[in-house]
Amino acid sequence: MKQSLMEKFKKELLEISYLGSAVAVLHWDQEVNMPEKGNDLRAKIIGNLVGELHDKFTSSNFEKLLLELNKKFDAGKLNDEDSCIVRETWREFSREKKLPLNFVKDLAETTSKAQMIWSQARVKNDFKLFLPELKKIVELKRKEAKLIGYKGSPYNALLDTYEPYMGVEEIEMIFSELKDFLIPFLAKIKKSKVKINSSILKGNFPIEKQIEFNKSVAGKLGFDFGSGRLDKSTHPFSIGFNPQDVRITTRYKKDDLLYSVNSTIHETGHALYEQGIPTEGFGTPLGESISLGIHESQSRMWENILGKSEIFWQYFYPKLQKEFPGQFGKIKFEHFYQAINTVKSSLIRTEADEVTYNLHIILRFEIEKDLIEGSIAVEDLPQIWNDKFREYFGIKVPSDAMGALQDVHWSGGMIGYFPTYTLGNLYSAQFYETAKRDILNLEKEIKKGHFEHLLNWLRKNIHIHGKLFSAEELVEKVTGEKLTSKYFIDYLEKKYSEIYKLK
Amino acid sequence: MKQSLMEKFKKELLEISYLGSAVAVLHWDQEVNMPEKGNDLRAKIIGNLVGELHDKFTSSNFEKLLLELNKKFDAGKLNDEDSCIVRETWREFSREKKLPLNFVKDLAETTSKAQMIWSQARVKNDFKLFLPELKKIVELKRKEAKLIGYKGSPYNALLDTYEPYMGVEEIEMIFSELKDFLIPFLAKIKKSKVKINSSILKGNFPIEKQIEFNKSVAGKLGFDFGSGRLDKSTHPFSIGFNPQDVRITTRYKKDDLLYSVNSTIHETGHALYEQGIPTEGFGTPLGESISLGIHESQSRMWENILGKSEIFWQYFYPKLQKEFPGQFGKIKFEHFYQAINTVKSSLIRTEADEVTYNLHIILRFEIEKDLIEGSIAVEDLPQIWNDKFREYFGIKVPSDAMGALQDVHWSGGMIGYFPTYTLGNLYSAQFYETAKRDILNLEKEIKKGHFEHLLNWLRKNIHIHGKLFSAEELVEKVTGEKLTSKYFIDYLEKKYSEIYKLK
Repeated sequence: MKQSLMEKFKKELLEISYLGSAVAVLHWDQEVNMPEKGNDLRAKIIGNLVGELHDKFTSSNFEKLLLELNKKFDAGKLNDEDSCIVRETWREFSREKKLPLNFVKDLAETTSKAQMIWSQARVKNDFKLFLPELKKIVELKRKEAKLIGYKGSPYNALLDTYEPYMGVEEIEMIFSELKDFLIPFLAKIKKSKVKINSSILKGNFPIEKQIEFNKSVAGKLGFDFGSGRLDKSTHPFSIGFNPQDVRITTRYKKDDLLYSVNSTIHETGHALYEQGIPTEGFGTPLGESISLGIHESQSRMWENILGKSEIFWQYFYPKLQKEFPGQFGKIKFEHFYQAINTVKSSLIRTEADEVTYNLHIILRFEIEKDLIEGSIAVEDLPQIWNDKFREYFGIKVPSDAMGALQDVHWSGGMIGYFPTYTLGNLYSAQFYETAKRDILNLEKEIKKGHFEHLLNWLRKNIHIHGKLFSAEELVEKVTGEKLTSKYFIDYLEKKYSEIYKLK
Repeated sequence: MKQSLMEKFKKELLEISYLGSAVAVLHWDQEVNMPEKGNDLRAKIIGNLVGELHDKFTSSNFEKLLLELNKKFDAGKLNDEDSCIVRETWREFSREKKLPLNFVKDLAETTSKAQMIWSQARVKNDFKLFLPELKKIVELKRKEAKLIGYKGSPYNALLDTYEPYMGVEEIEMIFSELKDFLIPFLAKIKKSKVKINSSILKGNFPIEKQIEFNKSVAGKLGFDFGSGRLDKSTHPFSIGFNPQDVRITTRYKKDDLLYSVNSTIHETGHALYEQGIPTEGFGTPLGESISLGIHESQSRMWENILGKSEIFWQYFYPKLQKEFPGQFGKIKFEHFYQAINTVKSSLIRTEADEVTYNLHIILRFEIEKDLIEGSIAVEDLPQIWNDKFREYFGIKVPSDAMGALQDVHWSGGMIGYFPTYTLGNLYSAQFYETAKRDILNLEKEIKKGHFEHLLNWLRKNIHIHGKLFSAEELVEKVTGEKLTSKYFIDYLEKKYSEIYKLK
């Protein structure tokens, strides 16, 4: 009987996931292939499928099954796997149930309009144009928090969508340690006598050759092209329809090879996670990634800790030189390594280096938290942004377009998303330290191009579990400690003290 | 009240069409992009969506609406457009209702298995291996005809899926006239003293250059790349998700440029039809093509009547010479024109020329009709095929792999499909004759690269109507006559008598 109830439930979940996969294919096609005029009908086709999905997920039949199983869960009568399935589905279901249809529609319409207006406001460098929209969004997100319910800060209710079970208090503590390190560390780097010439990376790289090189890197890191693709798109992203079909996209600049290579390594990190989740779990939370932060830990471990390391390029640099001899043939490894690790206060988050990146995130996190808690007013955002920016980076923001208007997240209603980027960095450093302890000669092997040891370790310790553990549980289980900023700070300090010859 | 009923009905139809478009995108992606390991889950994702679609189309709510509207239709209370919508939906609905779920599943499983076995049988040249499967399919298709009901031959019930409202008696009459012309005409060509050297078409054509040339041709003929794409795939096809997003694929051979060009022009013909159907009709039969035969008339008019004509190449040949000077720079127009119009008895339908192609179809039509009527036995198929082949083509079939096993259609249960290819040729010639009368200086304009006059005429006379008229009604409306083999025969006779200098 118990079995049969669970089986019925899994069948429902599977059908919902089939619809979800179909939606994902339609989205991917829209970004990568769709001709421009196809947009209007595509929006309707996707909207219709999302509606079907929502109807299934909130149907009384589904609710009945879930309620019955939830009783068993509360009574402790389910095994670990089934507990995970019921617990995580219940989380999502109860969240969805708490948001009335009118609210959901209002938010969707508001953010859809806001994104258009934000995009104009950014072009015109006119924050006032965007202000009424952002005010409405902040109001709606405060309302969302209220509808969902929270302990402590209302920001917790929003954060929970992106980083489940994580509290704002914990983030504040960790980010504040990080900030206390970063600001003086950046000041030290600025005073360093080491001057890096990063212009050696600029040149003329035919796109076709770049694509080829990117594919070879992704493949070498373990991306399975039998279960995935690498394509071009305006905004790089990765999307897994299921572990057997995971798509990465990259964007290219003709004069900047590393721009596409970094982006590909980052997305490959995401894709390796998606390809590593067990297919048997497809359709249930056992077939889903844990959180955005854990996802980002994978992309950033490959992109930064590996992809900007000496050991990584000791293997790949000779290959790069061979493919692009005119550009790199005569450039010393040391200078290349320095160039890809230049630290510099800069205005745009997506172009920031490993050190300053996290200050961009901390700034955004502090502001959006205060907006949701109501301790600052939306009107004051540009001023607050610019003041903080000067304090953290030591530079003046010349325009809102390059300041408070630069990211798409707020116009899209994605408040609570930003901290997951830095959480990803913290997780990645903590995981990597453990991997180094667990795997014999890990870095020696990487130098020789053996990335499979690390990948297997990630598969076995992280990917395989789906959502069986929360991020917090996983970190403790894998590393033996709670999440801490220590490993990431140590990593940055050691690496950049060497590069910038700091005492 | 009437309005409101119809509006409700259209809304239901629209949602069904959204699902249909989603399925089409998933199919296209499967053919063009999907990594190999994605196949299993993709099949389930598509199967699930097709199930949703079927549930919606056969829901009691939908049936109720349709029954009410059908009463109004019978009472003559609907305008032309609404009549079309109700009539055509009713046709499809009642057909689907007549086939029990068990039968549909049985047929799907049988053909799915049969296609695998057919593909092995073809490789092994072993008809006996395929025989039990084909027997079962013929049995099932006879059962299908019975379930659906028919007048005259049971073949009519099957034909009706592909060429609605067309009767086997009419096809037999027209095809027999055609055959009476083709067999002696082919014999005359074989005796001609004109010897064509078609090997001048073979060479070395880099795929990237071929793709570029194909795109330029498709665009010149009027294919709107803002509403479509041209990609590579193993089997060329075209698919319209809606008029704003129509996708063509082509396959390429490195040594044969015309192979891809012919294929692209053919698929462009289909795609121009799809792009020409009014978007306002999307979701109803007013947004659908009339029949496979009419669809094929569009592809074949562009591929053959235009794409293998002197006037077409008077415009395009200089461009071809410019793009591939090593191959065509020194080849005279006359020899090129002859080479692309070589007539030759050959074994494989898909590689046949304009003259012999229709004998391939007539042979298949006669055989499948007799199979369904039960006047021949499945066991005897290879013998019958080979006998007919010798009679029509004057050559001996060396193996079943190059004979009765060559096409995918029968293993896929697509009995009744073949005649639409030749119907397409007949329609195309009859339409084109009318276009020449209607459009001032049509062929002079084409020589100068002005294809838009013909396209506009096709848009106005054919594409714009969706399914408002049956194929039969449309042909009479546009050409003033019923469908006849006369125009096609005249076309072939004139063209090939000149090429082969027949008296």
